Amino acid sequence: MRAVILAAGEGKRLRPHFSRPKPLVRLLGLTLIERNILCLRECGINDIIIITGCYSGEIQNYLGNGSKYGVNITYLHNPDWKLGNGVSAFTFRKDYRQGEKFLLIMSDHVFEPEVLKAFVAEAPNINEGELMLAADRRLKCVYDLEECTKVKAEQDFAVRLGKDLRDFNAVDCGLFIGTGVLLEALSDAISQCNYTLTGAVNILAGQHKVKLHFVNGTWIDVDDLPSYRHAEKILLRSLVPPKDGLISRVLNRRVSLWITKLFARTSITPNKVTFLSFLVSTASAAFFALAHPFYGGLLAQLSSILDGVDGEIARLKFLKSNYGGLFDAILDRYADFLIVLGMAYAWYSKTGDALALLACATALTGMPMSMLLKEKFHALTGRPFIPEYYDGILRYLPANRDGRLFIIMLGGILNLIPATIIFLAIVTHLQALARLYHARKLM
Amino acid sequence: MRAVILAAGEGKRLRPHFSRPKPLVRLLGLTLIERNILCLRECGINDIIIITGCYSGEIQNYLGNGSKYGVNITYLHNPDWKLGNGVSAFTFRKDYRQGEKFLLIMSDHVFEPEVLKAFVAEAPNINEGELMLAADRRLKCVYDLEECTKVKAEQDFAVRLGKDLRDFNAVDCGLFIGTGVLLEALSDAISQCNYTLTGAVNILAGQHKVKLHFVNGTWIDVDDLPSYRHAEKILLRSLVPPKDGLISRVLNRRVSLWITKLFARTSITPNKVTFLSFLVSTASAAFFALAHPFYGGLLAQLSSILDGVDGEIARLKFLKSNYGGLFDAILDRYADFLIVLGMAYAWYSKTGDALALLACATALTGMPMSMLLKEKFHALTGRPFIPEYYDGILRYLPANRDGRLFIIMLGGILNLIPATIIFLAIVTHLQALARLYHARKLM
Repeated sequence: MRAVILAAGEGKRLRPHFSRPKPLVRLLGLTLIERNILCLRECGINDIIIITGCYSGEIQNYLGNGSKYGVNITYLHNPDWKLGNGVSAFTFRKDYRQGEKFLLIMSDHVFEPEVLKAFVAEAPNINEGELMLAADRRLKCVYDLEECTKVKAEQDFAVRLGKDLRDFNAVDCGLFIGTGVLLEALSDAISQCNYTLTGAVNILAGQHKVKLHFVNGTWIDVDDLPSYRHAEKILLRSLVPPKDGLISRVLNRRVSLWITKLFARTSITPNKVTFLSFLVSTASAAFFALAHPFYGGLLAQLSSILDGVDGEIARLKFLKSNYGGLFDAILDRYADFLIVLGMAYAWYSKTGDALALLACATALTGMPMSMLLKEKFHALTGRPFIPEYYDGILRYLPANRDGRLFIIMLGGILNLIPATIIFLAIVTHLQALARLYHARKLM
Repeated sequence: MRAVILAAGEGKRLRPHFSRPKPLVRLLGLTLIERNILCLRECGINDIIIITGCYSGEIQNYLGNGSKYGVNITYLHNPDWKLGNGVSAFTFRKDYRQGEKFLLIMSDHVFEPEVLKAFVAEAPNINEGELMLAADRRLKCVYDLEECTKVKAEQDFAVRLGKDLRDFNAVDCGLFIGTGVLLEALSDAISQCNYTLTGAVNILAGQHKVKLHFVNGTWIDVDDLPSYRHAEKILLRSLVPPKDGLISRVLNRRVSLWITKLFARTSITPNKVTFLSFLVSTASAAFFALAHPFYGGLLAQLSSILDGVDGEIARLKFLKSNYGGLFDAILDRYADFLIVLGMAYAWYSKTGDALALLACATALTGMPMSMLLKEKFHALTGRPFIPEYYDGILRYLPANRDGRLFIIMLGGILNLIPATIIFLAIVTHLQALARLYHARKLM
């Protein structure tokens, strides 16, 4: 399937706040239109047609032929963009291939990738003579409802659309899967001097031809400064993975999202953040070893926070890679190793107690067990190991990485090194044995 | 697809050596017919029809309705079994369902599971009016060629079969996918007083209706004591996984296969062997800690050998389970931990040297890295990590478990504890970093 991006408008309301055309306004490190292009690529759509109008030259100069994004971009210019977005959409008729289905998306709408993926997956479910529209019926969650195009839905079909509709039960997300009938309806609407996309969709809605797909995730139409700020907020919020540990969710993410927002504006890559997190761990280990546990603890927690940033930036800027996942997992193991070694060295050099040897070795063996069990379970069964589901009451043990580093921070601040190492040794092995026991029933 | 097992014959030549009918003769812990039933189950075939004759009662009593094997067994009795195996196969007409394809297998043939799997996968490739025959054209590898039914093949079709055929280029493996035409051919052959299965197949071969599938793996027709012994040998050999490490292949498997042969006769389960291997590691650790490194080293190597036996028994007796894989992986980590801890304790208690702390911690962190990297790579890419292919020249580092425990044995025997721990610390981290470096290009 090919995608058509409408990027012809002037974007008047955002223009005063930024020095560039709306599709090229940067939001957390990517321009609005880049985000949609990369999101489409993640959905497997590599052929993209951009309809330009007001800022044709700037947009073409910026995006080029798409090769830097790994996609193929072609441009269609609509000199009559001022008339309305229906005319812009109708420009696509020049490149339309008989019988094809195409995705139609607005350059200034921001979607969580999952929303787009779920919608693209619906393509086989519409017929040649139909149109599919993404709609949101969670009216209380919709941002700036007043500005939205409302939809009156009857079951899975739209019967009427309009900005001023009084009787409505959903709103239009600005995302379509079109077929030839959409171009026909656009032609009809234009011939009746209705130059809006909504006008054409309304004609089809009257003919019971507009199927609805109700979205579940986050999206927003970026129109002015408040909606821009809101888009930042919801995008950042969407970066938190659903299976975060307790400490991560309650503490780390609050800080890591703030760092991610900061880093997003730079060209720093996720792997560089992974390495930075490792360097901070090394510093933590050194502070512990040199008998400055307070700073050692704080740095351990900082490295734990940074450990979340790499993934957030990867998801935010579509930079996820398998190698990044491996690099992160292995460097985390080395970071754990150095920190515990630093603590054990401090303990031993002060007391000469051989228990330091035993506790350190036990903790070091226990710490990778959490990951080992999860990955082996995944490799054997083909299903990911979900702690929430499989760990039962033991999911509250601070035995996952966020919990362990939090304990280390506390131990450092309170200067309780031996107790911390012993506690880590116990909880990590307790979790490993509990998981092994539970797995028996679950595999 | 349903399977038909021919188990009607008398098995005269094996009878004097065993006190039971041939299908019920035990080979490495499973009777010949049980092995085929379990092998069929592994191929996804759960409906099995057994044609009995000479030892009808014994076989039914032993196997029952199949529920203990997780399959559904029904029996058809052929009172005229003495006439020949064609009459026995023809007995299936009573239960044949119009249009079905069925697998026909001899109860006294032993197949590597992969052979059967590959053959079953061919079922869609024959038409209603055809027969498929498994044949082996690796004539030099075929056991007791003289006794085999020979096949003259022209491309993928058999043109003639017979025990005394002079012009042949393959042999019949006694494995068929039949359709209705096989029953018709059997009826024709019997009406011409030819009571052998080969007779019927020959009729179809003459009509260019016998498609051949050439097998790649191991199989044997167990007919007499020498072939029984040979079957034992090739079955044991087939248990060695292709991606074994160097020490495993050259040393451990020679002993582990011998232990597996011994254990196969008992009801010991793979998980019990896993636990036994763990206990031996614990003993090894204790000997090291109590300053008896010689015995510590030998026991470490014994535990390494036993670590192969669990998998061998699981494959041999169709007892493979996901949980077994996880249990083995985790107990191996604990075994490694205890052994290195025992060695480090010996070092430290003798010298009081803090280097023992550092070396032990470094080795303990390095040892799980091999598995961690492999499993994480698998989980991320969906492809297993194959050391042979991905490790390059570093695959000769003794950093995998078989290599590590071999080094520990040498260290114990030569009483070089500190050097052994330091060596392990170095090779395991060297391998981890090399893998991480290589993975960048491979993921």
